[in-house]
Amino acid sequence: MSVLVVGTTALDSIKTPYSENPRLLGGSASHAAVAASFFSPVSIVGVVGSDFPEDYIKLYQNHGIDLTGLERREGQTFFWEGEYEVNMNNRQTLETVLGVIEDWLPEIPSSLREKQYVLLANCEPKLQRHILNQTQNSRFVIADTMDLWLNIARDELMALLKEIDCLVLNDSEARQLTEIDNVVVAVKKIHELGPKYVIVKKGEHGSILSTPKGLFIAPAFPITELTDPTGAGDSFVGGLIGYLASAGGEIEDHFRRAIIHGSVTASFCCQGFGLNATTQTTREAIDARVTELEALVRF
Amino acid sequence: MSVLVVGTTALDSIKTPYSENPRLLGGSASHAAVAASFFSPVSIVGVVGSDFPEDYIKLYQNHGIDLTGLERREGQTFFWEGEYEVNMNNRQTLETVLGVIEDWLPEIPSSLREKQYVLLANCEPKLQRHILNQTQNSRFVIADTMDLWLNIARDELMALLKEIDCLVLNDSEARQLTEIDNVVVAVKKIHELGPKYVIVKKGEHGSILSTPKGLFIAPAFPITELTDPTGAGDSFVGGLIGYLASAGGEIEDHFRRAIIHGSVTASFCCQGFGLNATTQTTREAIDARVTELEALVRF
Repeated sequence: MSVLVVGTTALDSIKTPYSENPRLLGGSASHAAVAASFFSPVSIVGVVGSDFPEDYIKLYQNHGIDLTGLERREGQTFFWEGEYEVNMNNRQTLETVLGVIEDWLPEIPSSLREKQYVLLANCEPKLQRHILNQTQNSRFVIADTMDLWLNIARDELMALLKEIDCLVLNDSEARQLTEIDNVVVAVKKIHELGPKYVIVKKGEHGSILSTPKGLFIAPAFPITELTDPTGAGDSFVGGLIGYLASAGGEIEDHFRRAIIHGSVTASFCCQGFGLNATTQTTREAIDARVTELEALVRF
Repeated sequence: MSVLVVGTTALDSIKTPYSENPRLLGGSASHAAVAASFFSPVSIVGVVGSDFPEDYIKLYQNHGIDLTGLERREGQTFFWEGEYEVNMNNRQTLETVLGVIEDWLPEIPSSLREKQYVLLANCEPKLQRHILNQTQNSRFVIADTMDLWLNIARDELMALLKEIDCLVLNDSEARQLTEIDNVVVAVKKIHELGPKYVIVKKGEHGSILSTPKGLFIAPAFPITELTDPTGAGDSFVGGLIGYLASAGGEIEDHFRRAIIHGSVTASFCCQGFGLNATTQTTREAIDARVTELEALVRF
């Protein structure tokens, strides 16, 4: 079954102490859609400007991503410039240009309205709700979010929580949302806000999935070289929903392995700038790492 | 087979925003020995002063701990007073009195010299080496350490690393010891310093075991109420070596389950002040949580 991904399609300039990487393909929808494409057919909903390179259109196409919902507008593509410190733990935003994404609230093509798996990748909650309201008969809706929206769009986010099946956020955001320090307790509180499923990302420490049947404690794949973590969270949730859509059937039956596949897809993302490493990987390489990860956690 | 535990035997006064708990039984050897006692016979090597309550002697005895190596001296028992902040993430040492442990370098009874599993629980590396040098025919030696010794006794610690089978430390200490940020890479460097086995503790995020056969990524048992984390690391390594000693045979065959049992024993420790919760638990309760943890990580 196919996946609808909405989110940002961006150009990212990423600096580290060792290199500069201008105008990479970035954005939550780009990372998530490419990650999901290893598992299922994907359609993307996004907007790019007149400066968006044709090569990046080809990159989407090489991953079989349906671009019916990718709007091209006069103006500048959403642009983000950031710089990482030596150990990659901290990053600083140097510049953000919203460009054509500012106030963009599209009508999506009717062919996209009945995709059964919907990923509202990280973007403004207002935009997430606007797209969600145009979909019909969805089997499963996941929303990713970030601290920025907790700070400046909390009401929209709280409304969104009542309309989705699954929320994805990181551990500090779970604490910020609930004002509860213990993540396991915070997750219970998040269920009360709406979503039946909650995923808390903990970066190198893995993630926690909470469902009506209880918790799943998931490991991260241990990588020894972290090149660029930008987009890792988007790759995680993209791989996850792509796997869920490929499995079909009962969500609960496949969610744990979906998390593992998302986690492994994200590990590839971290090993190159932008989408460089993700686009070089294959379903076979992902499956091999899943097998490796199984051996690393068995007891 | 039986376990020899050397370390501190202390009185701990522990404050939180909600309560004060004066003169609890504490110290690395106390926590580790009680944890190990759920799995194997344990002998403790330590020193207490004339102020050490008889009830705490009885507590050791109730856990079947052999006290031949527990010296009683005139003077004050090692005393530590600390205060935790609201979320338990930060603690402040309010007072430390070394008392009778200062410059204590005992000859241990000959009956203790051939215990096959030796735990050098967290204490001064000079003391750890002094005891280790009196042991013979040990099958497995684990040392636990902390940032303090990296700061003020680095040479002794580096010498110790060449004499032990397994080092246990937390993730920030692994980074401090190696000056390498990536924990997986740091572990490789620690092997080069001596120990064939390395365990990196990550608190609520679990731990990583590195052996000649590769990595094991271990979860922590998720608890919803953290009462007092003091001694959790000692309980972890105590439970671990107790389990290893009970299993016998090849270390590598049992190390993963030993980590899991240590982790679960530590989860009980966190649920009461000092040893209050640990002493209330049973082997059956520990095994039940191990089964629960298996279900939480299976995929």
